Amino acid sequence: MDAGTAVAGVTLTATVMAAIRQRIATRSLTPGARLPSIRAFAVAMRVSKSTVVEAYERLAAEGAIRARAGSGFYVAAPLAPLSLAEIGPRLDRAVDPLWISRQSLEAGEEVLKPGCGWLPASWMPQAAIRRALRTLSRAGDAALADYGSPLGLAPLRALLARRMSAHGIEVPPAQIMLTESGTQAIDLVCRFLIEPGDAVLVDDPCYFNFHALLRAHRAKVVGVPYTATGPDTALFAQALAEHRPRLYITNAALHNPTGATLSPVTAHRVLKLAEEAGLTIVEDDIFADFEVAPAPRLAAFDGLRRVVHIGSFSKTLSASVRCGFIAARPDWIEGLADLRIATSFGGGRLSAELVLALLQDGSYRKHMEALRQRLARAMAETAARLKPIGILPAIEPSAGIFLWCRLPEGIDAAEIARHALAENIVLAPGNAFSLSQTAKSFLRFNVAQSADPRIYAVLQAALRKADACSTTRR
Amino acid sequence: MDAGTAVAGVTLTATVMAAIRQRIATRSLTPGARLPSIRAFAVAMRVSKSTVVEAYERLAAEGAIRARAGSGFYVAAPLAPLSLAEIGPRLDRAVDPLWISRQSLEAGEEVLKPGCGWLPASWMPQAAIRRALRTLSRAGDAALADYGSPLGLAPLRALLARRMSAHGIEVPPAQIMLTESGTQAIDLVCRFLIEPGDAVLVDDPCYFNFHALLRAHRAKVVGVPYTATGPDTALFAQALAEHRPRLYITNAALHNPTGATLSPVTAHRVLKLAEEAGLTIVEDDIFADFEVAPAPRLAAFDGLRRVVHIGSFSKTLSASVRCGFIAARPDWIEGLADLRIATSFGGGRLSAELVLALLQDGSYRKHMEALRQRLARAMAETAARLKPIGILPAIEPSAGIFLWCRLPEGIDAAEIARHALAENIVLAPGNAFSLSQTAKSFLRFNVAQSADPRIYAVLQAALRKADACSTTRR
Repeated sequence: MDAGTAVAGVTLTATVMAAIRQRIATRSLTPGARLPSIRAFAVAMRVSKSTVVEAYERLAAEGAIRARAGSGFYVAAPLAPLSLAEIGPRLDRAVDPLWISRQSLEAGEEVLKPGCGWLPASWMPQAAIRRALRTLSRAGDAALADYGSPLGLAPLRALLARRMSAHGIEVPPAQIMLTESGTQAIDLVCRFLIEPGDAVLVDDPCYFNFHALLRAHRAKVVGVPYTATGPDTALFAQALAEHRPRLYITNAALHNPTGATLSPVTAHRVLKLAEEAGLTIVEDDIFADFEVAPAPRLAAFDGLRRVVHIGSFSKTLSASVRCGFIAARPDWIEGLADLRIATSFGGGRLSAELVLALLQDGSYRKHMEALRQRLARAMAETAARLKPIGILPAIEPSAGIFLWCRLPEGIDAAEIARHALAENIVLAPGNAFSLSQTAKSFLRFNVAQSADPRIYAVLQAALRKADACSTTRR
Repeated sequence: MDAGTAVAGVTLTATVMAAIRQRIATRSLTPGARLPSIRAFAVAMRVSKSTVVEAYERLAAEGAIRARAGSGFYVAAPLAPLSLAEIGPRLDRAVDPLWISRQSLEAGEEVLKPGCGWLPASWMPQAAIRRALRTLSRAGDAALADYGSPLGLAPLRALLARRMSAHGIEVPPAQIMLTESGTQAIDLVCRFLIEPGDAVLVDDPCYFNFHALLRAHRAKVVGVPYTATGPDTALFAQALAEHRPRLYITNAALHNPTGATLSPVTAHRVLKLAEEAGLTIVEDDIFADFEVAPAPRLAAFDGLRRVVHIGSFSKTLSASVRCGFIAARPDWIEGLADLRIATSFGGGRLSAELVLALLQDGSYRKHMEALRQRLARAMAETAARLKPIGILPAIEPSAGIFLWCRLPEGIDAAEIARHALAENIVLAPGNAFSLSQTAKSFLRFNVAQSADPRIYAVLQAALRKADACSTTRR
């Protein structure tokens, strides 16, 4: 071989390597997928087999692909082991969705958390929970020590069926399965219905943990802009045609983070498009009980044919007592129960017994009535205190805990969040919720965590500083 | 086109379809993998592109593969949606692993469950649990209503670290993460470390739910025969060379189902082979507290470099109060915490608080001392009652709840299990635990669930009937 051939050989090898890298980057080859056979790819690329062998071996040495004895080459995980932070576009650290969750979950008592997604423990029905624990201490042996049944505590499922019926969702208890949480419910549905590389639609913006969850499933996440009445239906239709998604994950009433409410017209249109495209919808309704005026439920319109309905008590009762649920088609519930046993065995019976006790004795209903009024007051107060510093609601939510606010022109929410964190305040900057990264001038406020005046002082200082910097840069 | 060409066309299409089907069946193309491009495969199969198009379209119509707009064809899931019962070799219904779990979980009080994997609720420390619930009813607000921290309750992790130290496993609390259960712990580790199509080693026989769990991960499960002192190391080495597995999932002391104990020699040899092959080991130690004499822990020898250690309290304290844990390398614990937040958000703080209370007040230690003695008596009694009917222990376990027994020559355990089920008795036939289906003459007995004389009467009748049939067939 003379020098010229050697150079040409190197170039051809690089070309083959680039072709494979591109397929991985564009996800036409997803992690775990087998690479084309050496012979077939040599033909396809019009190079010799030895060139393909060389290219594959170099990619394997780089860790981009992996050889398996006797069965060819496979696309490696983006990192082995799986790192959620590395999958998908790498976001700025301050707006990394997992970072916000972990900051909120790890925060000590000295930290204020207007950016977190749940109520303070003191807003929960403490007296009722304590009473329920004492009642439970006198329950039968099985309640305290046995596994739950595959679908979970039957009387609680019967009660949930009656509650869903009040939202127009007619579902027998046998089509409801209890889970540890709303998140675990969505995760199970994803494991059941999607494969790596499948496209999944989410709202843009949406609850940031949907991004992290879907990355864990190696799904191709596609965002659809969310309006004040639901997803933009024209762009929704376009996304269906372009990406043929398997799932659409959304909130029912009281959208997170915007506080918007799905209108009946949009609900009907979304369902019609879903039917035409064979799309399944996961309707996450964990904020249902905050609602004051009833909004339409996709599951109610659809009769659980292509809609899976999810709920939980983490936001309204206790996040320490883990209890969520799934309502779905009977054949899916059977498969989901098998999958749940395989991946976490029995459900938490003790938690289910506690939730049942609280729902049955009327304390939950009374707690929610008071809580809705308290939240309405907190919502008005938070808006009134944000207004003078130039932070205004983008949508007037009908109820709930979230206020989705726009910052003054030219201000980057991530910068404000970094400033606030240095002052022990966890904020939720808009881009954490936005796949397209088009929410940089938004912040989500949890009105139940926004009472401390220090929050507004720090926000004002951060805004002044950011404004001064942006003026200097001009 | 004349008739002859048309016939040849059909035959060629069928050949191409058969080639793809074979690749799917042999898992050289795994679910979600992209099929070879039409052009490349036409070249490889020496047929026209239109023949490949025709073949792919027919396979898509059959549901074996799926087209994605603009990006080719992909292997469909064995069923869409995922059905665990359909993945992997379809076992006889009576020995389907999920079937046993569901029978055990769904069984009413009239059903006897010598085949189930846990203790009767009445054997659990009921008085202590009731006391702990009353104590918890006076705990702080956060304990009752807040999310747990990402790794879980710090004092419980500190206590677990001290307990592991007693087994020679030195691990700081920061390298321990609480989970909802041992199964959830293993599931998280699998999600973190393996990709679809990766090979995973299990013991043959092993806990049947490992098969179901690994099928949910679309892993290639490889069995290694388990002996009275641990896995057969020669065959273990051979499996490493042949399949290059990513993980080996096994029990620490008190192997399920055999009750065997890993010897130090085997432990050392397994670790050495794992190091050479870059293999990670998941050591499921949920039966640790049943142990009387301490056996070696792989995690102790290895210092948690390539061993992940798993535990739980479902078998010894309560399966209604969900609490398991993972001890692993610090970088992996970080990634696992992110993954847990993404897929189930916070852990169950209430359960962790309950377990902590029970471990701290000494009631757990006293309970376990009494329980070990009670189990030793039950073990002797069960063996003594099985002996006259010709069912003999294959291994004499040093402790624990399981007795792995061999049936008389020529008797099929699945047949006995079907007979027993008709009499409201759930048994655990050997092949449910065996990937190679070589345990057809074994049954696993849970000695804590085997006190009722009806079990032995039904077993005797079933054996007589099976023996009569097999005599007739001779």
